[in-house]
Amino acid sequence: MLRFLTAGESHGKCLVGILEGLPAGLKINKREIDGELARRQKGYGRSPRMKIEKDKVEVLAGLRKGKTIGAPLALLIKNKDFKIDVLPHVYCPRPGHADLAGALKYDTKDIRDVLERASARETAMRVAIGAICKTLLQEFKIGIISHVTRIGEVCARTQKLSFNQLRRKAANSCTNCADKVAGARMVAEIDKAKGQGDSLGGVFELIAINLPAGLGSFVHWERRLDARLSASLMSIPAVKAVEIGAGFSGASRRGSQAHDAIFYSSGKGFFRKTNFAGGLEGGMTNGEPLVLRCAMKPIATLKKPLASVNIKSKRVTEAAVQRADVCAVPACGVVGEAALAFCLAEAALEKFAGDSLAETKRNYQGYLKQVRAF
Amino acid sequence: MLRFLTAGESHGKCLVGILEGLPAGLKINKREIDGELARRQKGYGRSPRMKIEKDKVEVLAGLRKGKTIGAPLALLIKNKDFKIDVLPHVYCPRPGHADLAGALKYDTKDIRDVLERASARETAMRVAIGAICKTLLQEFKIGIISHVTRIGEVCARTQKLSFNQLRRKAANSCTNCADKVAGARMVAEIDKAKGQGDSLGGVFELIAINLPAGLGSFVHWERRLDARLSASLMSIPAVKAVEIGAGFSGASRRGSQAHDAIFYSSGKGFFRKTNFAGGLEGGMTNGEPLVLRCAMKPIATLKKPLASVNIKSKRVTEAAVQRADVCAVPACGVVGEAALAFCLAEAALEKFAGDSLAETKRNYQGYLKQVRAF
Amino acid sequence: MLRFLTAGESHGKCLVGILEGLPAGLKINKREIDGELARRQKGYGRSPRMKIEKDKVEVLAGLRKGKTIGAPLALLIKNKDFKIDVLPHVYCPRPGHADLAGALKYDTKDIRDVLERASARETAMRVAIGAICKTLLQEFKIGIISHVTRIGEVCARTQKLSFNQLRRKAANSCTNCADKVAGARMVAEIDKAKGQGDSLGGVFELIAINLPAGLGSFVHWERRLDARLSASLMSIPAVKAVEIGAGFSGASRRGSQAHDAIFYSSGKGFFRKTNFAGGLEGGMTNGEPLVLRCAMKPIATLKKPLASVNIKSKRVTEAAVQRADVCAVPACGVVGEAALAFCLAEAALEKFAGDSLAETKRNYQGYLKQVRAF
Amino acid sequence: MLRFLTAGESHGKCLVGILEGLPAGLKINKREIDGELARRQKGYGRSPRMKIEKDKVEVLAGLRKGKTIGAPLALLIKNKDFKIDVLPHVYCPRPGHADLAGALKYDTKDIRDVLERASARETAMRVAIGAICKTLLQEFKIGIISHVTRIGEVCARTQKLSFNQLRRKAANSCTNCADKVAGARMVAEIDKAKGQGDSLGGVFELIAINLPAGLGSFVHWERRLDARLSASLMSIPAVKAVEIGAGFSGASRRGSQAHDAIFYSSGKGFFRKTNFAGGLEGGMTNGEPLVLRCAMKPIATLKKPLASVNIKSKRVTEAAVQRADVCAVPACGVVGEAALAFCLAEAALEKFAGDSLAETKRNYQGYLKQVRAF
Repeated sequence: MLRFLTAGESHGKCLVGILEGLPAGLKINKREIDGELARRQKGYGRSPRMKIEKDKVEVLAGLRKGKTIGAPLALLIKNKDFKIDVLPHVYCPRPGHADLAGALKYDTKDIRDVLERASARETAMRVAIGAICKTLLQEFKIGIISHVTRIGEVCARTQKLSFNQLRRKAANSCTNCADKVAGARMVAEIDKAKGQGDSLGGVFELIAINLPAGLGSFVHWERRLDARLSASLMSIPAVKAVEIGAGFSGASRRGSQAHDAIFYSSGKGFFRKTNFAGGLEGGMTNGEPLVLRCAMKPIATLKKPLASVNIKSKRVTEAAVQRADVCAVPACGVVGEAALAFCLAEAALEKFAGDSLAETKRNYQGYLKQVRAF
Repeated sequence: MLRFLTAGESHGKCLVGILEGLPAGLKINKREIDGELARRQKGYGRSPRMKIEKDKVEVLAGLRKGKTIGAPLALLIKNKDFKIDVLPHVYCPRPGHADLAGALKYDTKDIRDVLERASARETAMRVAIGAICKTLLQEFKIGIISHVTRIGEVCARTQKLSFNQLRRKAANSCTNCADKVAGARMVAEIDKAKGQGDSLGGVFELIAINLPAGLGSFVHWERRLDARLSASLMSIPAVKAVEIGAGFSGASRRGSQAHDAIFYSSGKGFFRKTNFAGGLEGGMTNGEPLVLRCAMKPIATLKKPLASVNIKSKRVTEAAVQRADVCAVPACGVVGEAALAFCLAEAALEKFAGDSLAETKRNYQGYLKQVRAF
Repeated sequence: MLRFLTAGESHGKCLVGILEGLPAGLKINKREIDGELARRQKGYGRSPRMKIEKDKVEVLAGLRKGKTIGAPLALLIKNKDFKIDVLPHVYCPRPGHADLAGALKYDTKDIRDVLERASARETAMRVAIGAICKTLLQEFKIGIISHVTRIGEVCARTQKLSFNQLRRKAANSCTNCADKVAGARMVAEIDKAKGQGDSLGGVFELIAINLPAGLGSFVHWERRLDARLSASLMSIPAVKAVEIGAGFSGASRRGSQAHDAIFYSSGKGFFRKTNFAGGLEGGMTNGEPLVLRCAMKPIATLKKPLASVNIKSKRVTEAAVQRADVCAVPACGVVGEAALAFCLAEAALEKFAGDSLAETKRNYQGYLKQVRAF
Repeated sequence: MLRFLTAGESHGKCLVGILEGLPAGLKINKREIDGELARRQKGYGRSPRMKIEKDKVEVLAGLRKGKTIGAPLALLIKNKDFKIDVLPHVYCPRPGHADLAGALKYDTKDIRDVLERASARETAMRVAIGAICKTLLQEFKIGIISHVTRIGEVCARTQKLSFNQLRRKAANSCTNCADKVAGARMVAEIDKAKGQGDSLGGVFELIAINLPAGLGSFVHWERRLDARLSASLMSIPAVKAVEIGAGFSGASRRGSQAHDAIFYSSGKGFFRKTNFAGGLEGGMTNGEPLVLRCAMKPIATLKKPLASVNIKSKRVTEAAVQRADVCAVPACGVVGEAALAFCLAEAALEKFAGDSLAETKRNYQGYLKQVRAF
């Protein structure tokens, strides 16, 4: 069982995470984690805070000589902007945030008590945890990417690109978009929104390759990988929709045009020529690439704030203005990769177990051999 | 903690469920559960099996004189079509089903070992469990409906209808569609697909009303109600996408047009005039109606089967043909209601706890009073 | 993850259990389960009810042609004495039972609402589930026994007996005691207590052999097998103490006399000549036999009832008299075996995983080979 | 749901803990936590390391202005002795420790990979977490103490002392023993063992007062508070037995002499004059003081080491010698208090829920009123 807890507030001292359940013997590279943290802070349209932060992870526990020993990992990311106890009260809840419901739930008249933890700052720790999960997945040659397919009304066309093309092209784009033309239009869209004190959302796609068939299961609802993936992705702040494979567009197709016929060759084993299923059938990986898309709503903190109500005076007011991004879809995709990586690492360890990396790999190889000989 | 396990195969003796964690003193009405089971079996486009089944629940344990006593409830739904041990082997996996990945995972050359449990038959027990959760939610005046907004390429227009109008109109429609004109076109679409040996998917919307603000939480990712709802809904067989509130369409709006400004009146307390958020902000209910939509892919078992491969001979073949529906979107919506009801009951008991219904209600009333006095 | 839920009341229709998480391909033998159920009903000193029940299990779901298919198993044991709705109210709580605290907690003035589920009748289903876990453990040659070491003030001397001797001798004893002389005195003790309208408790020992080293873990407190075993055993009604290996007596020894020196031979690998640790070091199995002892308090329902208070009138009264045993230590030991079997099956599946029995065994063999080559 | 994860090795940089699930508005006092950490480091018979450490907690996250805000708490305790990466290899497993089984399980030839996390150093973080749980319990006037009743062969007589007497007398004793005469003999016993290069174990008792009836439940085995308490206590390194109330000695009594007759007065409500049950009936608190005892085996690291085997050469050797205590029973009792505090806080929050301390208390008061009016 792989599991984690995180703690930390937006203007607190630091973010902390504990990740428990990794096999012993996995080499952890701090620079790889920092690389993912840097990816999360990039993307055209971010706020000045992103320049303040420059997140670096510190591994406080769980490693010996750079390798896991079966013990829980403790991670720390310092906040450069530590001032939670001196920041002013907040009385004007921002629509689209946890502010109002959180104040009611936790019974506080100072919304700062809510927004500090509800902030997307927390996702930095999830990215660090996801980076470690990616390291585990690399041992099985499982690769994960994200790329942006929409910002505001600008859509990318990327259907014909391979995994490696998507990866490379997106990495070269300041909006993490693999369609160069669309990427340029996205930048213009962001500039325009910024000029108007407004914000933008969008859509990103996640792809994972080299997954063996049979991760997840249909035997009980919460064992289904589709269910777990969507929980993981929908838990990312501002994500309001998740679709797998053809998703919503699949719902308007005919059955004869919406499923992936099965083929076999002695070289490849069973395979498909289409991937409407997005790599998931019956709540399990089917051996094809996993493909998911998430919709991110526009940033809810606006320079031109929305109408709100002061929770003390009950008078009409404008929502509080916190430092914020104009658009964070590329970053959200990086968080999505991390959420996906955790889910896949969890599913892989569930299926292959193992207390040492050698044992996990031995069990995995045994399964691959079984599948190949099927 | 509310939790359940289910068991049962499509052609086994019965379905069984155990639901644990309800407070004592809740009156359970078998007819209400059977009513929900009947709703699940209806809908234009279902297979002849639906006429065979006529599901009825039997409560085997957990009740005394018709009321819960704090003990786990055991439920049983008989299968009329019990023949799992005599049904023939299945060697030709159906695209879009668990068949192939399941056979590889569980290492069986008889796909019947997979498809029996992977069958959507299992959702009957989830509907029974959801019906009991609805009974609990009714104690708090929380109402839940589903209605179909799309079948194949036919879309309904229902944006201007109230909760009660949607409920009434959908109940009068054989496709559970609140738009009469679209409903008629959906019937025609189903007839056409049926004539062609094809199948259809679609989209349904779920709405829950009267929820207090503050169910779920932002403090840790798996406490978020949006995450838990999407897991619950995505776990329904054939559901490939879930969106909350504006969902995908919200991703193309500007921030100034995508969030719900906050208002206050002494009568209503805090309220909104729009509901882009679908009733969920910061992973919590915000007091507005909960609105979600799910995409169901077309039925994967086709009369004109898709190309497949015999898993023993590895020769090209047609997929196995099992008895199946042409379209099951209305039924899927009923399962969605059940999944939603479980999630909300779980979240409500998490927040209000209580070992007796009186205690749960007392805690709930205390909270409502706190929120009103905020 | 292996898990189960049970439901059912003492005078309800039946007991129901769902066991989820077994690999596919395990042959389940109904007669073996019934054999364990019969063992639970035997033992000198049981009430007449034990003659009424003659428990038989029915497997309602999860099997195909007698084998598991990866799906949850549903089990049912009928109650012959079904009359929960017509049995009279109970107002006089029995000391030593859930009666009073349960009535307060669940806010009921009829203690029957409490005692029906709190009854040890529930352990029948746990024994059935444990029997299935034993079947799985047999695939790994892991054996489990219990034997009674004390009833009232009569103690057995069994320190010098081997696992097989204990098993055989206990099986031949009506008190499940491997010391023949003590067994006869236990019978006399039970007769005497019965004649006085009184009851007896005692101590039983549990032993499991052939466990590989390394089940459980020290890396986090709830992963420790000692913790999980003691929870499982302490959850058995009337068990008030659990000790591992030397247990309490070990606490008065010197360190130099209380630990098991480590030896090695090329034939056996690492081994011990003593077993103070009871087979558990650092929360893990260490390859030696697992040895635990549980104390069962005397049956709390007495023919000559204890002083109590009528919860309606608040007047002094005698506790309610329910049909009861004079002594149930042998039966409690059988329940202990089941609790132990579940824990060990859970720990084994955690370590070896596998969706098919073949995969679980392959992973297990790989680990044994690794340990042998260490 | 209250939960926590810990991380950290004996000679790592620090210990880290995340505690999640506390209501908002609880004032956390760092000095109180440090006070508990100091108590854990004291006790006659500890090693010189205890003078090195002087543990202090740092709260890294989850507080604002000294109060909880509903967010997870992150705690850090620095190790003064940070040198995990430079300490030498360990090849000679110590009997009574995780060393051998851990090396086999995690497949490492350097036992330091195992002993660093398996060290009882980890309990410092559990004590910090327990201290916070005590703070919560104090809001409900629930008090917890431990006192030592045995070290080696020296037993204390404390049966006639009240909770407050036990607390006061134990606090004044360097062995945490409330019997002054026995305490002095314990010191002598420790000196003697120390002189012989040997070690000692013992028994401590835990008591909690002011618990409402009805925490925990009988409705499902893992909801039982007795089960959860024994898991929590047995998970403490070196604890090999747990008993509740009369425990093992209760097993030799007659039923008529082993249960607690029920009385009632309008002032006290229901009450008992004896407490054989140790405050737990039917897996629930019954309103009487909770009483548990734990046996701690002698320290397994000896100055005169036990026989062992070098895991590389397989030659007979002496076990590795790590810095160690002669006797740590008083400290173990402090860890026991923490484990108990966590369990009780968890059970209380399960029953009373609440997102703010005010809500938790309101729900609690409502329940108390219900019980009083019963």
